[in-house]
Amino acid sequence: MADKMIRIRRASHEDRRRPVLLAIAGDSAAGKSTVAQGIVDALGPQRCTMLSTDDYHRYDRAHKPFTALHPDCHYLPILAQHLQLLATGQPILKPVYDHSTGRLIRPQLVEPAEVIIVEGLLPLHSKLARACFDVTVYLDPPEQIRRSWKITRDTTSRGYTEEQVLAELVEREAESAQFIRPQRSHADIVVRFAPIEARDDAPGTPLSASLLLRTTIQQPDLSEALAPGMARTIHMRLARDGDGRPVDSVHVHGYASPEESATAEKMVWHALGRDGSAVPEALGRIGADERSTPLAITQMVLMHHVLAAGR
Amino acid sequence: MADKMIRIRRASHEDRRRPVLLAIAGDSAAGKSTVAQGIVDALGPQRCTMLSTDDYHRYDRAHKPFTALHPDCHYLPILAQHLQLLATGQPILKPVYDHSTGRLIRPQLVEPAEVIIVEGLLPLHSKLARACFDVTVYLDPPEQIRRSWKITRDTTSRGYTEEQVLAELVEREAESAQFIRPQRSHADIVVRFAPIEARDDAPGTPLSASLLLRTTIQQPDLSEALAPGMARTIHMRLARDGDGRPVDSVHVHGYASPEESATAEKMVWHALGRDGSAVPEALGRIGADERSTPLAITQMVLMHHVLAAGR
Repeated sequence: MADKMIRIRRASHEDRRRPVLLAIAGDSAAGKSTVAQGIVDALGPQRCTMLSTDDYHRYDRAHKPFTALHPDCHYLPILAQHLQLLATGQPILKPVYDHSTGRLIRPQLVEPAEVIIVEGLLPLHSKLARACFDVTVYLDPPEQIRRSWKITRDTTSRGYTEEQVLAELVEREAESAQFIRPQRSHADIVVRFAPIEARDDAPGTPLSASLLLRTTIQQPDLSEALAPGMARTIHMRLARDGDGRPVDSVHVHGYASPEESATAEKMVWHALGRDGSAVPEALGRIGADERSTPLAITQMVLMHHVLAAGR
Repeated sequence: MADKMIRIRRASHEDRRRPVLLAIAGDSAAGKSTVAQGIVDALGPQRCTMLSTDDYHRYDRAHKPFTALHPDCHYLPILAQHLQLLATGQPILKPVYDHSTGRLIRPQLVEPAEVIIVEGLLPLHSKLARACFDVTVYLDPPEQIRRSWKITRDTTSRGYTEEQVLAELVEREAESAQFIRPQRSHADIVVRFAPIEARDDAPGTPLSASLLLRTTIQQPDLSEALAPGMARTIHMRLARDGDGRPVDSVHVHGYASPEESATAEKMVWHALGRDGSAVPEALGRIGADERSTPLAITQMVLMHHVLAAGR
């Protein structure tokens, strides 16, 4: 039997190019697609494969025994297997969940590009899945922000009423606490988009971002961009993580002026070694006409990791 | 990047039990399911996973750019990947082709049992797929026999007219010669069910079987069953393969009497080391009420290989 394993290995291509895998985890409507889309647009869609873990739904909507937050509601071992295959440069036949009908339909062939961005509810749930990623991010907005995002999205583009969305949030709370939020501790970077609590900003002020940069991966050196003169827009603090471990915490303020924000974006872009080029317009984009510097800088840090991991 | 590969290996289970994989290849209506089903029934369905490569159709019937015999008409690299996964004891999310509608539908989770029988048009097409099998069989009936089987099956259970079936056979001939028949050279065992040419048997006489037992695997010792007194029912000849290499050729005659046939079955069963037990009734079954000793003995030889490979 052992010789068969050798034959299999010899017949398969172990020398394929290995893509970089970035996980963007978080609860429903935490901003995962928005963060991911800017990175895809900035890198160029031909260099990226986007993968939503929603496609690994195990049940058609009509026959779902749990909410979508429960691990048993997904083919998570198959997700981990597919991440392994993609991480070693192999194609997968990906299941496809049709959100409009709530049904699993014909699967789709996915060839790994240079960068694979995996966003979803539970990409960091299993140890094997986590081992497949080069960089992992958890999006952690305050619950009231996420609630308003979810209401906006689900009532405008998924055909639900506000009452239905609120009822679903209540129904999902226990499983959110049990399965989604524990993934926060497995992320290399935790991002929180939120207003600054001590301030009373005018409505419409962009949200600020705080980025916990954990030492689980080699974090970029932002010192150039963190000159004291920039502190109104961006600064970094030594902090303690939830479990007491030391961590760097970068803050990008949404209330900075457009000029200060543009300068900060350029300085971070420069500090990350992208000297020659302009900041890609796709970064920081929210929907058709909103823009956010805290989002843009978050995406720059993730892009940096993706490009550094591929070297 | 190398450390990620190590993390992935450590997080995955390399110590799973490894199933035995048997391939049954052959053209459309060559008897693949009939041969496979008897083995599954004799081993017990709980010990077997049956896999049809038809499920790896790449196109819905309405959009098919080739006949089903063309390798590009299938997800063959994904089939090879899935065989690799099953061979190492891992589950797969298998695509599903619905023959009644000609469409790919929601995929299905398949956990590998102790024995995996893979039957289809092209299981031996790629080197990687071939490396995954412990035993490979090619069914090679004379074309006029296969044609009559195909007409019977496709007109009775697949809703075609005889004219449609005959037209399809003509349409497929070139691709059959180009892609299906070359697999014959990659099989450990080649089985031909056919009437004995020199004889003029009464209609209804069961077909005889000839089994080429190639030295690519350790073939069973049938000497006990091949006593000269048995030669009317079963005998073995030293022969030359298509390419001139020496090969054993076992012949089981359909025209032997029921008593001679029953004795031959018992002797082969005994020679293969299944002493204590009776010959399973499932072996040799064709449809609801036909039975064939040449088929039963063919299935015994394959069962022997499957059980020997698992030891």
